[in-house]
Amino acid sequence: MRRYEKEDYPVDDVRRFLEPGPVVWVSTAGPERPNVMTMGWHMVMEFTPSLVGCVIARGNYSHALLREQGDCVINLPSSTLVDTVVAVGNCSGADTDKFAAFGLTAEPAEKVSAPLIAECFASLECRVADDSWVDKYDMFVLEVLKAHVAPLKKMPETVHYTGSGRFQLSGRTISRRAMFQPEML
Amino acid sequence: MRRYEKEDYPVDDVRRFLEPGPVVWVSTAGPERPNVMTMGWHMVMEFTPSLVGCVIARGNYSHALLREQGDCVINLPSSTLVDTVVAVGNCSGADTDKFAAFGLTAEPAEKVSAPLIAECFASLECRVADDSWVDKYDMFVLEVLKAHVAPLKKMPETVHYTGSGRFQLSGRTISRRAMFQPEML
Repeated sequence: MRRYEKEDYPVDDVRRFLEPGPVVWVSTAGPERPNVMTMGWHMVMEFTPSLVGCVIARGNYSHALLREQGDCVINLPSSTLVDTVVAVGNCSGADTDKFAAFGLTAEPAEKVSAPLIAECFASLECRVADDSWVDKYDMFVLEVLKAHVAPLKKMPETVHYTGSGRFQLSGRTISRRAMFQPEML
Repeated sequence: MRRYEKEDYPVDDVRRFLEPGPVVWVSTAGPERPNVMTMGWHMVMEFTPSLVGCVIARGNYSHALLREQGDCVINLPSSTLVDTVVAVGNCSGADTDKFAAFGLTAEPAEKVSAPLIAECFASLECRVADDSWVDKYDMFVLEVLKAHVAPLKKMPETVHYTGSGRFQLSGRTISRRAMFQPEML
């Protein structure tokens, strides 16, 4: 699997990667080894501070890790990793060392205890900014503290889950920039 | 513009349309006329009840309408409407009758005061289920009460916003169903 060299990226512009709605990997530090889960329920909430909301059902091992550790990394896999995306989403870190099982490479983050994933083209270091809706909705508000993005000319193709084992792939990008009011850009 | 005949669709499966992350139109009933806004910050939160979270900045006219009326409809425009998506997103219902200005057709909903949009291939009637994070994050938790979807063989191409006036189009769909654990489907 390709590993991406990544560079610093402005945290207030991570909507570029998240707002289109791709499946992401959430990596966490565990007591013995790092863990990773596949996540589809997330949204951008604010530019500054850079906030992302996500719902991680309490049945997931990562739910407990995220509560305990208080941080995670949101990693973006390209569509070439779709089989690994499915594999990661269909087993539990409670009994599987997913990084080892699926050949993923954990790299140290700068501001959080959770690892970056080298095979992803973007990795967003996040801390839990608000856990007051975890009991009610399994929802975490994350603040993106640092963003690492591969300096690619073109965004890699991503996968977007539709349920029932089916994924929508991202297609081409079009610009309507000329139609926008300046303050809306 | 094409108008879609829609049929009842299970509310606990609307993730099929929302989870891939498309730009949607939120329609609301206004004091004098209906309104519509373009929205990109949303996520699925629960299957049953069917909950969707969204962030609508308080500067938007629709924010006030949604608080006052307590309901809205989430409508899905296909990519053929992208110019209208941009136009709707770049003016305010406070001074523009957007349905009239952009040739959209409001149709009565069954369970809410907000209208369905005939030119969209799916329309989800929603009530505000939780407004306790509106002051803090401009976030609404919506419950989908009824879903209307056009009986199409293939999901229409959708638009996914990346900021800076650029949209990612949805691409083809692939299945990995055979790789899933039955309980994960």
